[in-house]
Amino acid sequence: MNFRTDLALESREYLRDASGEEISGVEITVEEDNALGITVTWVSVTDQQGADVMGKPIGNYITLESSTMKDADPEAHEEIAKILAQKLGQLHKLNKDAVILIVGLGNRQVTPDALGPKVCEGILVTRHLGENVPTDLQGRLRAVSALSPGVMGITGIETAEIVKGVAEKIKPDLIIAIDALAARKTSRINATIQISDAGVNPGAGLGNRRTPINRDSMGVPVIAVGVPTVVDAATLVNDTMDKMLDALAASMPEGGTFFDMLNSLEEGERYALITEILSSGNMFVTPKEVDAVIGRLSHIIANMLNIALHPGITQEDVNRYLL
Amino acid sequence: MNFRTDLALESREYLRDASGEEISGVEITVEEDNALGITVTWVSVTDQQGADVMGKPIGNYITLESSTMKDADPEAHEEIAKILAQKLGQLHKLNKDAVILIVGLGNRQVTPDALGPKVCEGILVTRHLGENVPTDLQGRLRAVSALSPGVMGITGIETAEIVKGVAEKIKPDLIIAIDALAARKTSRINATIQISDAGVNPGAGLGNRRTPINRDSMGVPVIAVGVPTVVDAATLVNDTMDKMLDALAASMPEGGTFFDMLNSLEEGERYALITEILSSGNMFVTPKEVDAVIGRLSHIIANMLNIALHPGITQEDVNRYLL
Amino acid sequence: MNFRTDLALESREYLRDASGEEISGVEITVEEDNALGITVTWVSVTDQQGADVMGKPIGNYITLESSTMKDADPEAHEEIAKILAQKLGQLHKLNKDAVILIVGLGNRQVTPDALGPKVCEGILVTRHLGENVPTDLQGRLRAVSALSPGVMGITGIETAEIVKGVAEKIKPDLIIAIDALAARKTSRINATIQISDAGVNPGAGLGNRRTPINRDSMGVPVIAVGVPTVVDAATLVNDTMDKMLDALAASMPEGGTFFDMLNSLEEGERYALITEILSSGNMFVTPKEVDAVIGRLSHIIANMLNIALHPGITQEDVNRYLL
Amino acid sequence: MNFRTDLALESREYLRDASGEEISGVEITVEEDNALGITVTWVSVTDQQGADVMGKPIGNYITLESSTMKDADPEAHEEIAKILAQKLGQLHKLNKDAVILIVGLGNRQVTPDALGPKVCEGILVTRHLGENVPTDLQGRLRAVSALSPGVMGITGIETAEIVKGVAEKIKPDLIIAIDALAARKTSRINATIQISDAGVNPGAGLGNRRTPINRDSMGVPVIAVGVPTVVDAATLVNDTMDKMLDALAASMPEGGTFFDMLNSLEEGERYALITEILSSGNMFVTPKEVDAVIGRLSHIIANMLNIALHPGITQEDVNRYLL
Repeated sequence: MNFRTDLALESREYLRDASGEEISGVEITVEEDNALGITVTWVSVTDQQGADVMGKPIGNYITLESSTMKDADPEAHEEIAKILAQKLGQLHKLNKDAVILIVGLGNRQVTPDALGPKVCEGILVTRHLGENVPTDLQGRLRAVSALSPGVMGITGIETAEIVKGVAEKIKPDLIIAIDALAARKTSRINATIQISDAGVNPGAGLGNRRTPINRDSMGVPVIAVGVPTVVDAATLVNDTMDKMLDALAASMPEGGTFFDMLNSLEEGERYALITEILSSGNMFVTPKEVDAVIGRLSHIIANMLNIALHPGITQEDVNRYLL
Repeated sequence: MNFRTDLALESREYLRDASGEEISGVEITVEEDNALGITVTWVSVTDQQGADVMGKPIGNYITLESSTMKDADPEAHEEIAKILAQKLGQLHKLNKDAVILIVGLGNRQVTPDALGPKVCEGILVTRHLGENVPTDLQGRLRAVSALSPGVMGITGIETAEIVKGVAEKIKPDLIIAIDALAARKTSRINATIQISDAGVNPGAGLGNRRTPINRDSMGVPVIAVGVPTVVDAATLVNDTMDKMLDALAASMPEGGTFFDMLNSLEEGERYALITEILSSGNMFVTPKEVDAVIGRLSHIIANMLNIALHPGITQEDVNRYLL
Repeated sequence: MNFRTDLALESREYLRDASGEEISGVEITVEEDNALGITVTWVSVTDQQGADVMGKPIGNYITLESSTMKDADPEAHEEIAKILAQKLGQLHKLNKDAVILIVGLGNRQVTPDALGPKVCEGILVTRHLGENVPTDLQGRLRAVSALSPGVMGITGIETAEIVKGVAEKIKPDLIIAIDALAARKTSRINATIQISDAGVNPGAGLGNRRTPINRDSMGVPVIAVGVPTVVDAATLVNDTMDKMLDALAASMPEGGTFFDMLNSLEEGERYALITEILSSGNMFVTPKEVDAVIGRLSHIIANMLNIALHPGITQEDVNRYLL
Repeated sequence: MNFRTDLALESREYLRDASGEEISGVEITVEEDNALGITVTWVSVTDQQGADVMGKPIGNYITLESSTMKDADPEAHEEIAKILAQKLGQLHKLNKDAVILIVGLGNRQVTPDALGPKVCEGILVTRHLGENVPTDLQGRLRAVSALSPGVMGITGIETAEIVKGVAEKIKPDLIIAIDALAARKTSRINATIQISDAGVNPGAGLGNRRTPINRDSMGVPVIAVGVPTVVDAATLVNDTMDKMLDALAASMPEGGTFFDMLNSLEEGERYALITEILSSGNMFVTPKEVDAVIGRLSHIIANMLNIALHPGITQEDVNRYLL
């Protein structure tokens, strides 16, 4: 598999389309909430054969899809945060006094890669408070810490080394790593959140795979939370071409060489066809949006984590402690 | 012509490639500096026929190309600023006491659209100083002002309206508008600066054409300075496909349908071919770079303007007043 | 009056403390909401005598004080936005189809001066939408535009000139100018919002008084909205000393002379002396967590304006269109 | 000693002024460069008695003072970077293949505290390059890494824990920690750089003293580089008042008592009184143009480190690799 996707959902989709069969060692369950237009898909890679075919490690990959993530729709965002918090609870059971280290991967200077650092800004950090927790929250907060170490090109250090070094000091029971991902389909960009217990490769979304951050490398469980914010341009062209050939094949005259037919299209017709195929039109998202969308996604994920990690924080009061 | 480019150079290139002939009403001169790898091309659209074919208004378009713009190469950048300052002087002769309004178009929140606002940050603004000019610079500075009005989606006002309103107050002799552009070739991204006396359409680079800012609409001469920072994704796919068809046509077996051949390629081979064709690899520039490159380009253009506009500022001392 | 305050409330407070009497030409009404700890004070300067004594133009100055503004307290912030929206409606009655220009004064690069530009980021801008208003909002939005022109040191242009130029183009029925202010008391920093129909001097908060933006200069009504974000360091020392002398006077032995002498200094002489002692005249004082607090204040003011200006936007759904 | 300063120079100055004598266990050497207006002072705390009196650990404290740091004066800045690079070499001798970890302390969101993170942005980071060093630099670069861990209020982790954890992984031969400091005199703000081999307390500049980062806690040598960017407001008032009393004492009539009384207050009582009067303890004082000035200071320090740490980088070509 040569194309770039960090979503287990898309890997499986592609393999099924190619072979027409279910994949051995991969299980899938889909829940849909039609009222809110939210789809949750649970892909489990259950054995090494499945992992090899999928190109993804053994583990669970929960994907929530909803186009509302891009919009100013606070009610839908609350619902998404609530569902994700539940799923996180299913993936990993936390002890009452668990210590958690949240790691915001990515480069805060580059908008589509800034998801991790931005989520960290919204986290209710408590590990340092000790006895200084506000009275009404005592006994209701877990010890949460948050680190945005920066990317290797800026630090000169593998991100996994930094996280491992800090983890050995503060000995968390769970590491949660947030990162921007790459997807194959433009329709999934900024409209999908994947939670996984299989770890993460820092920098995956922008094409720089590094030492993984997972249970093996860290010595404690690792939950990865990611959002696809970019599509690789070559994947985009490749897929566009596929769809174009499919579209043209139907109306292919007998004996005509495809080459002739493709060339017989007016330049304008071809361009219009490609524009139509690329559902999102312009790959570079329009001005105001890219910043705002990353802001919304960070808000959803930070809320999800604040609810999931602190027993005393609920959907209703999560904003009280942060806005 | 359906593809998106804001470079007159590329429009002309495309038309020549398509027709194999020179275009009536369009003149071209090329200067190369092999030592520094800088190419300067002067495209003049001389009559309405040329303008209609080119899809660009009558006027002069000077394009400087150099791949050094992307790198940390201060000597080359100084040379580029010097050449551009000369060209600007050829495009428009300034009176000794001319008042200049520099307009930084684009959205400062979106990195590839932030060129205009960033250039404004580097401008030696003097119009408000009046008698307060430092002694050693008295009589050696023109009255320069700089405005970054923001994009229409954020202000609710056409940028041309804002600029016109301000221009009617401060009555500049020349408006210089800086904007990010779209190019057709990925190799020209962040490696090309175009200066033109034909004005500019704010938002052109990101696909939102608005009321133009030009001599007609403003009532005073307008010089546009632009750098292509994005390629439209559909243009990219279209051109990639063209190149792919060219590459494959050569080795086309007789009688074989092109469709068969294209389909007989392994998925991996096809992907590799597309990746090879897309010289820049990943359309989303790698992390640290996009920010740094826009910073370098802004520095070059601001220096160019500071040298060109202020008689008392030279290549040697331009940094004294700004760093 | 030598000390620096942009709050009419503080000018009046100071004058009363000094003279022990009410000031002719100045009226005052106070409303307190004890439950939420919100105080609203309405100071009216009713004639030129009052204006001269106060050092503030004739007009109404509504001040809302609440220490919750600094905290993460969304419920209190909603209440404050609602109260302010009502007060704004009392200060100025808007026609159904009024066109509004919001102006964010100040420098976005300097945190305590960034209030105006940050409020603009949160405004629901609609003037450019024309027919493209979402169906459920048609007929329920006024035409709102928002401009952050930048400060004179960066543009080379008086801010009033820019605003006037743009206003002549878009012909608003009302201009609302947002700016950071200076207060005298540190306890009022980031805990006070002043709304006034008497206009504003851009840059007042940081000590650079310019051409005012008011009904006279703009030709249309101007509402100013401001938050004190800084205290002038010399004012701070001066007031601190006053309090110290007060504190010490109680235990002053009879026949003391230094106290007499210190008090016999004209207020102006003392202030000049302190300013001289503070070798750098440009110091300002501001709380540490200023970034977060400015964010909260901007959110409150933007919400207030969105509710007050758009008939179809209520307290309940204001976040739907913006978050 | 109750007032706040992180400069050994100021502690010694204060003690001498108070006692009129040299301090045992403290040595001082001053070099002046009158041409450029640069003063370098070397304060050595040589024994524990000196350390106790000074309130600073045993070690060397080199202070470079020059008012040009605040201005756009690239030539002076180059000279300062060169002098500091030499002094750094005198404080610590680096092996040819030494590994260096640079730590940018402070909060990047709060301008006067952002010095550390901003210096890191300008560092030529090389540790991750391995064999990928550009040909002309091979064998001429040391392995440099750079980390900006964020402040404890944002991470929930003591900064010293993070640095120690990372240091145990990458085993540097030297840690260089950059931080914003507090000074006593406003004239030293942004006009002074202190280099020390005695380590640093993260957050000292803004009043939050934490576990120190020094040779003892880290197990490797630590060089601290700091710039005073704030003055504590209470220190400011206190010192201002002192100067005022001095000024007034000259014209004090005989038999005065208030003066005696004020002077008879213990320094500590007076300071406590002022702190109480200033209701908000968290005020800091900082110049208005702080953004630009922090940018210049970061540039000077990053250049100093790039020259000092990489044998192949000189004053002349340092910008080639970074601008």
